[in-house]
Order: sequence, then C-alpha cells, then structure tokens
Amino acid sequence: MKSITSTGYNPARLGWEESVFHTANGYLGVRGSPEEGAPEGVFSVRGAYINGFYDIKDIQYGEKLYGFPETQQTTINLMDVQTVRLWVEGERFTLSEGEVLKYDRELFLDRGVSEKRVLWRSPQGREVFIRARRMASLEQKELFLMKYAVMPMNFSGEVVLESEESGEVSNFFNPNDPRVAAEALKHLHITRAEHTPGGTLLAGRTDRSSLEIACAVAHQVESAAEKETWQAGERLFTRFKAHVPQEESLTLTKWCVYADSRRHPDAQDAAQRILEDSLAKGLQHFLARQTQILSAFWAASRVEVEGDKALQSSLDYSLYTLLCSAGWEGISSVGAKGLSGEGYEGHYFWDTEIYVFPFFLMTSRNIAKGLLEYRYNILDKAREHARLMGHPKGALYAWRTITGSECSGYYPSGSAQYHLTGDVSHAFIQYYLATGDLTFMRDRGAEVLVETARLWLDAGHEEKGQFRIDAVTGPDEYTCVVNNNFYTNAVARENLSWAAKIIKILDKQGMAEDVRKKLNITKEELRAFEKAAKRMYLPYDKERDIHAQDDSFLRKQRLDLKAIPKENFPLLLHYHPLWLYRHQVCKQADTVLAHYLFEDLAEPSTMANSYAYYEQCTTHDSSLSTCVFSIMAAKLGDLGKAMDYFNRSATLDLDDTHGNTRDGIHTANMGGSYLAMVAGFGGMRIKEDGLHLSPQLPEKWEGYAFRLRYQDSLIACRVRRKGCVLEVLEGKDVKVYVHGQKVKLKKGERTKVDA
Amino acid sequence: MKSITSTGYNPARLGWEESVFHTANGYLGVRGSPEEGAPEGVFSVRGAYINGFYDIKDIQYGEKLYGFPETQQTTINLMDVQTVRLWVEGERFTLSEGEVLKYDRELFLDRGVSEKRVLWRSPQGREVFIRARRMASLEQKELFLMKYAVMPMNFSGEVVLESEESGEVSNFFNPNDPRVAAEALKHLHITRAEHTPGGTLLAGRTDRSSLEIACAVAHQVESAAEKETWQAGERLFTRFKAHVPQEESLTLTKWCVYADSRRHPDAQDAAQRILEDSLAKGLQHFLARQTQILSAFWAASRVEVEGDKALQSSLDYSLYTLLCSAGWEGISSVGAKGLSGEGYEGHYFWDTEIYVFPFFLMTSRNIAKGLLEYRYNILDKAREHARLMGHPKGALYAWRTITGSECSGYYPSGSAQYHLTGDVSHAFIQYYLATGDLTFMRDRGAEVLVETARLWLDAGHEEKGQFRIDAVTGPDEYTCVVNNNFYTNAVARENLSWAAKIIKILDKQGMAEDVRKKLNITKEELRAFEKAAKRMYLPYDKERDIHAQDDSFLRKQRLDLKAIPKENFPLLLHYHPLWLYRHQVCKQADTVLAHYLFEDLAEPSTMANSYAYYEQCTTHDSSLSTCVFSIMAAKLGDLGKAMDYFNRSATLDLDDTHGNTRDGIHTANMGGSYLAMVAGFGGMRIKEDGLHLSPQLPEKWEGYAFRLRYQDSLIACRVRRKGCVLEVLEGKDVKVYVHGQKVKLKKGERTKVDA
Repeated sequence: MKSITSTGYNPARLGWEESVFHTANGYLGVRGSPEEGAPEGVFSVRGAYINGFYDIKDIQYGEKLYGFPETQQTTINLMDVQTVRLWVEGERFTLSEGEVLKYDRELFLDRGVSEKRVLWRSPQGREVFIRARRMASLEQKELFLMKYAVMPMNFSGEVVLESEESGEVSNFFNPNDPRVAAEALKHLHITRAEHTPGGTLLAGRTDRSSLEIACAVAHQVESAAEKETWQAGERLFTRFKAHVPQEESLTLTKWCVYADSRRHPDAQDAAQRILEDSLAKGLQHFLARQTQILSAFWAASRVEVEGDKALQSSLDYSLYTLLCSAGWEGISSVGAKGLSGEGYEGHYFWDTEIYVFPFFLMTSRNIAKGLLEYRYNILDKAREHARLMGHPKGALYAWRTITGSECSGYYPSGSAQYHLTGDVSHAFIQYYLATGDLTFMRDRGAEVLVETARLWLDAGHEEKGQFRIDAVTGPDEYTCVVNNNFYTNAVARENLSWAAKIIKILDKQGMAEDVRKKLNITKEELRAFEKAAKRMYLPYDKERDIHAQDDSFLRKQRLDLKAIPKENFPLLLHYHPLWLYRHQVCKQADTVLAHYLFEDLAEPSTMANSYAYYEQCTTHDSSLSTCVFSIMAAKLGDLGKAMDYFNRSATLDLDDTHGNTRDGIHTANMGGSYLAMVAGFGGMRIKEDGLHLSPQLPEKWEGYAFRLRYQDSLIACRVRRKGCVLEVLEGKDVKVYVHGQKVKLKKGERTKVDA
Repeated sequence: MKSITSTGYNPARLGWEESVFHTANGYLGVRGSPEEGAPEGVFSVRGAYINGFYDIKDIQYGEKLYGFPETQQTTINLMDVQTVRLWVEGERFTLSEGEVLKYDRELFLDRGVSEKRVLWRSPQGREVFIRARRMASLEQKELFLMKYAVMPMNFSGEVVLESEESGEVSNFFNPNDPRVAAEALKHLHITRAEHTPGGTLLAGRTDRSSLEIACAVAHQVESAAEKETWQAGERLFTRFKAHVPQEESLTLTKWCVYADSRRHPDAQDAAQRILEDSLAKGLQHFLARQTQILSAFWAASRVEVEGDKALQSSLDYSLYTLLCSAGWEGISSVGAKGLSGEGYEGHYFWDTEIYVFPFFLMTSRNIAKGLLEYRYNILDKAREHARLMGHPKGALYAWRTITGSECSGYYPSGSAQYHLTGDVSHAFIQYYLATGDLTFMRDRGAEVLVETARLWLDAGHEEKGQFRIDAVTGPDEYTCVVNNNFYTNAVARENLSWAAKIIKILDKQGMAEDVRKKLNITKEELRAFEKAAKRMYLPYDKERDIHAQDDSFLRKQRLDLKAIPKENFPLLLHYHPLWLYRHQVCKQADTVLAHYLFEDLAEPSTMANSYAYYEQCTTHDSSLSTCVFSIMAAKLGDLGKAMDYFNRSATLDLDDTHGNTRDGIHTANMGGSYLAMVAGFGGMRIKEDGLHLSPQLPEKWEGYAFRLRYQDSLIACRVRRKGCVLEVLEGKDVKVYVHGQKVKLKKGERTKVDA
C-alpha cells in the first residue's frame, strides 16, 4: 500500500502539513507540528485534541434575540507533548537557520505511523539526520507515541535532546473567518504539573465545563545519556545529553497517555495506569497491533482502483482519515475536521450522518452503531432544543454541537438547518435497512424516529392538501430561511413515513410495547405522520421539469458565475449574505443531493434537468458539494463529469484546493470521496427492497473493487470493463439488485453480471 | 394649557419618570433622575445626552460574515450634573428613609420647565419642602438649568446643599434585551476636571470616536451660605451651608453648559463662553424666551381636541417631546428615544422620515429641512454602505446610524430593511410637494433621489415583465428577508418614478445641469427608472382581494393570537425569530402602512380587506403600529376603531403600556399620534395634485382643530359636527382638496365645507 508523502521544506505549507500528517485514532488527535517549534512568523497551529472533550464559552451577539444560544461548546487544545528540541555541539536545530538538505514527510497507511525525515546542515556545517515518528495507537486510544532519532552524519559530538510537556496552551482563533473560533481563550487550567520517576504528569481542568484531563508521559532514551529535569510554571523540561559518534543515533521515545473525565472516573489515575500498562507491553506490541488493526480495516474497507495510482492514494488517505476521526463509544461523533485541527471548533454537524456514516455502515458496523448511539444519547438535548425553538413536541437536533446543545451563533445557516434532524433519521433508517437490526430499532431507533417525526409535524402545516415546511434552511448555505426547501421536505417525508412504519414493523414482532408506552404513541399520531408524509409538498417547476430548490429560488436573479473574479471565491468571504440570498447561487449540492438520497422521488429526466440547472448555479464553495455532483453525474451516465468532480473531492486536502486545509482536513469530503466511488461509480443504494448496485467503469480505469457489509454478509464487488463479479466472502447467501435486476449471491460462488 | 403630572412616590416608577420628565431641546437631553441619587436597588438610568454625540464600539458576533459591520456608534452618557444632595440638621435627604408626605412631578408644556415637589419628613421628624425645577433652554441649546429650593417647614436649622459634577459615568446596558446596549463600556475619558471661580469645568474625550465634550457649570445661591469645594478624582463637589429659618428657602441654581466638538471647534472654550454669556443674560431672560418660543411653537403646531381633556394632554405631550427630540442643524436627526434615554443607543431609524418628519413638515419647516439636510450630508456614507452590500451603484442608507455607517448587528431586522432608503426618498418628495422648494431639490433632493433610485435598479431585477426585489425585510420585523415585500416595492416604485420626474422638472426650469453632470445621469438611466417603476411588482392575492405582504406571507401557518398567553407578548422576547418567521404574524403595520402612504395604489375595497386581514395577524409589539392602524381605520370610516388605536398610541408612554418607557420615550409613536389626528381623523395627504383633507369627527368629541403650513400659506382647519371651517391665516390664497373636492381658500375668509 502506497504511503502519503510530501517532499521539500516550504514554510508556507507547514499549516497544511500539520493537518494532513496529523495522527489520530478517533479518540485522540495530534497535529503534525514541528517537534522543535515552528520558526517565527510561520503559520502553525500546535494542537492536540480529544474527541468530544470541550469547554464552554460565551457567544456574543450584536443583537441577541430570544433563543439564541448564550454559550457554545468548543474543543480545546490539550497540554502539548510534541516538543523535542535538539542541539548538536551547542547549535540549536531550527529550520529557519542552517540548510535543509532534505525534508520528507510520510504517512504509512498500513502501519498507522507518520514519519518525518530531515537532513540538516547547521550554520557551522554539522550535518544531522533526524527521523521523527509518531503514532496514535488504534489499540490503546489514549496512547500517543513519538520516537525522535538523531544521527550526526559528518561529525561525532554532543547531542542534546530536550523534551517539553507544557500546560501553557490556548486555542487558535481568527476574528474574521466564520469557520474558526473568533477569540483567544485560555480553556485549560493546570492543576498538577510535575516530574515523575520516568517522565512527567500534567493534569488540568477546563474553565467552564469542569472536565478533567490528565497527561502522563514517559521518556525512554536508548543509549546512555545524562538526564536533567526542571520546571518553569506549567512547563516541564527533561534534557538528555550524550556524546554520539558519527553515523550512530540518539533516540528519544515519548510515551504520552491522555485520559479525560468524560471516559474515566479518575483521569489522573487512568493516565498513569494506562501509561504503566503500555510501557509493560512495549513498543513492538503496539506497532504490531497497529498493523494488525489496519490490516483488518483495509480488508473490510479498501476501495481499489486499477489504473490510477494517484487517485488510489488519495482514496486510501480518505478512508484512513475517516477511521482516525470517528468516535465509536456513543459520546462522540465525527468532527467537521476530524481530530486534525480546530476548524469548526470540533463540532459535529450533519456531515457525519450524510457523508461519513454510510462508509462505516458498509464497512465497520460497530462504528456506525456508535455514531447512532451518540445521537440517541443526546436525544433529550434535542427535545430541549425543540422547546426553545418554539415546538411543544418533538426533538430538533442542534446544527452544531458536542454534547447536544446548539453551538451555532448564526441561525440562518445554523439552527435553521432543520434538515439535520431528518438526516439523523435517515441514518437510522439506512442502518435498519442495511442490518435488519430490529433490537436496535426497538431500543434506540424508534424513539429517535418518532420524536423527530413529531418535530416535523409541528414545524410544518397543511394548506390546501399540501404539507408545507416554512422558514428553514436547506443544505445550501447561500440560500437561507426559505419555504419548502425540496431537500428538507424530502428528508422530512422519509422521517415521517418511517416513524409510522417502524412502529408497525415492531408491532408485528410484538416489540413495540415499550416505546409506545414511553412516548405515548397513538394510532392517530401514526396516521398524522403518514398523512403528512403523503401530502408532503415537493416543489416542482413544470416549465423546466426540475425540482425547485425552494418556493422562491427559481424566481431570483440569475448570476453568471464565470463573470465573478476568481479571487472573489469562496463567495461567503466576499459578499454580504443578503447579496447571496438575492441571487440564484448555491454554495453546494442541495436539490442534487436530494436526488441522490431519494432517487425514487423524481423521474430520471427531472433529475437530469435538475442536475444541469443547479450545476450552473453552484460554486462548490462548500467541501460537501463536488462528491455529490460526482455521484449524480455517474447516476445520470456522465462518467467524464463524474470523474472530474470525483478528482476534485479526492484531492481537496492533499492538494489544498480550498486553501484552508491548515485549519484541519475536510472529513465530510473524505466520506464523500468514498461515496463518489461506491455510490457514484458503483451505484450503491440501500433501499427498502434491498441493496442496489449499478457499477459503471470510467474509461480511464481498468477496474475497481470494493467490499460491503450487507445484512449478514460480506460482499466483494469487482468491476471490470465487461461487467462485475460479486462474491459473498463471509456470512450468508444474499440477494441484491444489480442494474435493477435481482441477483442471488451464493456464498463461495462468484456471480458475474454483464455491464 | 394643561401640564403633565405624576403624583405620589413609587420607586418602581422611577425609571419611567426619568424618561417622561426628561428635559431636552433637540440638542441636549437630561433624564429626570433624582438630584439626590436613586435609592439603592431602584432602577434608574442617570443620563445626559447630546444629539449625535457618540462613541464607537465593537460589535461582537457568534459568526461574523462578510459585510457585517465591525463597529457601532453609540450615544454616550455625558458628565453628570444632576446631583444636588441635601442635609437638614445633619440628616441626609433620601426617599428611602423618613417619610415622603407629598411627591409631585409636573412638566409645564407652555413654559418648557419640569418641576418636582417633595414634602419630606426626616427620620427625626423634620419636615422640608423641596422644589426642583429644570429646563433645557430652547434658545441656548447648550444650556441646562436647574433650580433646587429647600424650605424647612417645621423647624429652623442648618441646611446643606452639595452639588456634584461628575465625569465618572458609563452607559446603561442589558445583555438580554436587543433594544438596549449589551455591554457596559466607559466611553468618556475625562481630560480636565477642576473648580472655577463660580463653579466647575469638566472636559472629556470619547474613547474611540475622539470627540470632545466640555461642561461648564456655575452655582448660584440666593442667600448667604458658607461655601466649600473639593475634588475626588473626576468628581467635583461644591457644598453650601446656611442657617435657614422655618418657612424660608435656600435655593441653588445650577447653570450647566454642555458644548461638543461636533458643533464647536473648541468645546471647552465654547462651554465657558456660552456659560458667561448666559449668566450675563440672567435667568429671567431664559425663562421668558422659553415661554415665547413655546408659544410660537404651539401656535403653529397644536392640535386641539374639544371634549377629551386627557387625550388633549397626551397629544400635547407628544408634540412637545417631538420638539425636544429633533435635530435641526443637518448633523443630527431624531433618535428612536429622542434625547430621553439610551434605548436603541441614540440611533436614527426610518422613524424620523415616516413618523416624525410629517409633523415638522406641516408645522416647523426649518426643522423638516434640517432633517433632510442630515440625510443629504450622509449620502456618501450611504454610497459606501451600498458598495459593501454588493451594489456597484447607488446609495443604501444604513438601518440605524448616527453619522451614516451601519450600526445594526443583526441584519434580518436591520440592514435588510432596504425600505428605509425609499422612506428617505419619500420624505424628500413630500417636502417638495408641500413646499415647492425647487432650489432645495436642485441642491439636495435630486441627488438623493437619483442615487437611491440607482440602488433599487441594482437591488431588483426584471423577470417576465415584472420588476422584483428579493431578500429584503419590510417594516414588519416578524417577517424577515422576504421577496417582494409590498411596502418595499411601493416605496421603491415611488423612488424610481420620482428620480426621473424630479430631473425632468428641473430640466424644464433649466436647473438640472449641475446634478446631471455631477451624477452623470443619462436619458437611458431615467428611462430605466421609469420602466422599473412602471413594472414594479406589487403582490396581490386575488382570492382575498388583498395585497400580500410579500411573496410567501399568505401561505405561512396562521396563528391565533388570542391563544397566546398575555405574558408572552411582546413575542420577540419569547419566541425564536424562526418561529415568528414561520407564522402569519406581524409585529407592526406593514402592508397597512403602505396603504396609508400610497392610497392611490389600491382600490378602497382592497385596502379594507387588507386592513381586516392584517389586523388579525398584528400584535402591535412595535410602538410604530397602532397609529397606522388608527389612520387607516379612519380612512376606511371605522372611527370607533380609529379612536381605540389612537388612544393606544397617545397613552403609550404616559401609561407605559409597553413597559419599557424607562429606556426612553417612543418618539416615532409621538409623531404617529400627531398623524393619527391630522392624517387619520383629518385625512391629510400631500399628493402631486395638492393638499388633501377629509376631516371626520369621532362621536365622542365636539370638535378638533389643527394648522398646516402648505406651500406659502398657513391654513387653519377647525372640524365640527356639521363640517369643517378652513382659513388661510398667513400667506397666499391656496387651493386644497376636501373630501376629494377642490376648494379655493382665500386669505382672511373662512371657508366652510359640510361634513
């Protein structure tokens, strides 16, 4: 398996490197910052984060209206363990002095290790080779490992390695970019900072959420070295000095264990205990387990493309970072930037359910289930939020949150995105359709579906036989607070319909009693759900034979996107929202996304017309857009376009095409790249009647292959020019649809379907 | 003329008293705070303000998008001169101790003096009578006078009066009410604080706007008293001690002159010079002039009602406060709270042009002209604002401002109210129609009309023969960012049409050359204005025969306002904006206001239907609403309803019906009360063909009378049961329309028109 590499030192790319070469495991994420510290004036966000570990801060408003959230949760930058400073014969290593002869970064996707190799010549001509490796353990999620090795190349002499663990950290901010935090705040108050026999211990408490975090570190140096330790406030220093002969190494291994009070009753104790256990198991154990875990992951998940190595590599990177980003234990989810940066403050959006969840659903079901558990666990918060927004019944999930409360400080492209609540229900429905797990639906899913359906029933209203939903924002954030957004109405329709359906299904199995009782569900209510679903108004423009994005979109002023100077993109950074709202311009796929998710709602010709119409309005200023256009281009048979859009998704972070990867990777787009392959070219859909595939092969490729977990089976699908070959690798025989035709797959038998 | 009185001490009403009994003159305003200081725990905003004197502060946003204003202007609380503390025989006077035997406040509308009379018994049984009078001079606008007299009633003894002038002031704030400032800030830095031979001098500079303000005070004590002075930081104390025999008085007169650097090149010098001049003229001079000026004001402005004394009194109060609130010198306008409080931070809104301007236009033309000069003077700021909002051409006036920059921190019910720009143009047009002042239109009006018309041309677009304006907010702030708001399209239509018309009128007189050159106005542009005006889309609902508030209003969910608990009003303090936007609910008159301003745009039956329809949707949570409903009820012949709504307007502040008069009086509603009389019952309209009147007499009254300046005449109109009598009191013969019939009025002749 190819690794991800970056060659050559360029200070302007450091922020990007920190994101792309971050190391994470779904719990803990550490940015790939320079151990020795970033040279002055170079953009760097030195950070480490725990998924769902947050503080609280005030949201300020120019004018605060009723229901605007007063506070916001924010992921916080943890105590910093990344620092290792280096001196050779008294000369301090820094990239801004001397000469960088060689500089490589490499991320090994099969071993889960990120590596940096630097050959540096000091101002006085001493050459050293530095190899710094990092790993966030997939086995022991609290464990972050660093191995820092220095080799004098043209001299023998004194080498000093100085490790620092620091509690003097704060979060990154930028007051002029709505996509990152607006003000600098000190969130972590250090309560303990001390040297321990083999290392250091730092513990702290968050400012307002009163969560605790501890970080225990052990230092190992392989050769004999003089050791010295000291402390300056909340900064702990450990210095190793040794005489190192030419072409031999001095190596420092840092074992860093972070434990937090959301997972551990006693964070300090947990950190120390896990550190001890880990040291006892030893480095080789963790390296081996990392490879094993990844081997299993790739076996279940990898999408192979024959004939496009660069794309294969991007795709591998996408799936790898999804694994690194995802919470699985029901109290965290997938941040918009995963665990790679502070953009969007670690909040969870709809990105999880619509862009990321399908990947896990089809490959790592335990993670998929964990993501649904998370939504179930914050259902009470969604109920509270609904009340605050004026709904006497039902549950409205917050647009951006960590533990469930609304964290959006601007509702038109925030809380108004009611569709998220339907997106959550969609994920539960997809889970049920893919797994048949009725027990989970009884214990979790039904409650979520009914409570969210109640929300829609209250948010909408019937007029002249149409069920209409006013004053919401669809996925497109350049068109806010509109009436009857097609996408929103489509997800609400499914939500309402399935709330009634799942209760009936459970009824049939005698499994509905508890939820019926708990929620006081009546026949009348289920009928009201069904009626609203049936009468759901889906705006349609007859003249153009397209679905209208909302009631008013098609009558707004058209905009020639080609006439707008390139430097004015993304438009949100150059135009007032009212100007955007006044024009037919989309930040991202909206109606086109609805066509993908609910393809049976519209005629193919209508979907084709919609696609063409919205394509010329869409800037793709959101990273959630091109993958959807790729999927729908494939669906409509335009593989050339599908490929273009897919390439834009697949390379977004590696090529930094949006220019803001330094704030963190775009996790939804990683999931979107997977979907562009599997749902786009592969045509995968999970419908009520089963798993559908419609594999198509772009001309450029020789073939591609992927695996899917569906019901009790693991299915392999290999696509070639002549058609595709399907095989049940594990589990039972299963029937699927290929190009709309029912196909029975028998375990151990390869089934060929012609193109 | 009746005065305004309030009897009995009630600490809960102190904030209200401070607003209602404030003293102001259009330049300077001082709240009616207790001289001795408010008792602890009693709500009080101790303040003094200068119209248009402001500081700058940051606006904070949860998410800041492009074009959101970064800073805001805010009126600032000036150095405090109100303090006079009193000791009698060592006992300190405070309303919270001893016994208040009598407490009266009275505002003399004919003399321009506010008075407080207190009979107090000290804890030890000493009784004193205190009479505190105040006046903001209408002759010398910088001058504020206080006269504080104490009379021992049942003893002879030592009386101490301690005057304080303090620079330790800050603004009032409330983080949870969008209608007042959200944070406490120290805006005034004192640069000079010292005793002078006869008093004190305080000077300061604003924090960020770098404006200067000086306040020179002289103390006069009529009888022999021991004087002592001292200073504590920015607080200056002057103490007078005297033995006062029973039933004699000790009287302190404070001459306070505020001068600011927006009006005076050297504020300190100006304050001292004006103080000296004023002292030389003496108290009697200013009292006499105050009465003279008010006498002239009332002669031109008073609306007399026969048969309703309470209402007469409220109406008198309304007109009096309008005079107290209005800037006239072209650099200030009329704040939403006049000069009576800090609500809305001293900003100018559309209130001026639509609610207040008509009063001055018909009664005090110099002030009306000054208000238009103000808009002309900030035209460049409106141009800048238009660019920021994405319009390459034209001028867009800021929704709330002091010197022209947008000060709104929430655009949906702020900057999105593009109609303000049309409201400004409407005022210029009304001015021209009422005065025929073509010179002013050449020098000022034409430029404003053309630049604002350009804005509409860019903001809207033509589709299928209709000129449409999307993504704006009309007057109703419970329905934001909509398409084709009827009111907005109607004002835009007039604006566009008149921009072309005024140039043609000027052309005919050979007066257009300068403005044509300055603005590079072409024939094609004027044709484009005319075409857009002609094709302006005015949404109309055929089924209901009403004008639709906007494209979507009538399809939203209806709301039974009677089902909402009373304590949930005003709705804006109890419901999230999205909930409000989702329902057919109006904060205030919107379409109904358009029907009043542009009555020839709709059939009478349509206006009647609109009125009935919107009446049941409207909460009147805005103080700008009931007066408009009163006017339209009168127009439609329902005098009973007109009277009900009129009463609600007329008593709003005196009865504190909105519960927030303590933040300041509702100035627009004061103008609205005038309009309810003159445009409502009197039926006054200024149209292209002339002045129209349609007087109607409510049953309850015996008659009413008002005077109007129209063209070169002063017209008196007296309405009785049988009809009305019109007379030209000054100026030329003039023709007017009464009940639609042309009537020629000859100077010195009374013309009777039957009802």
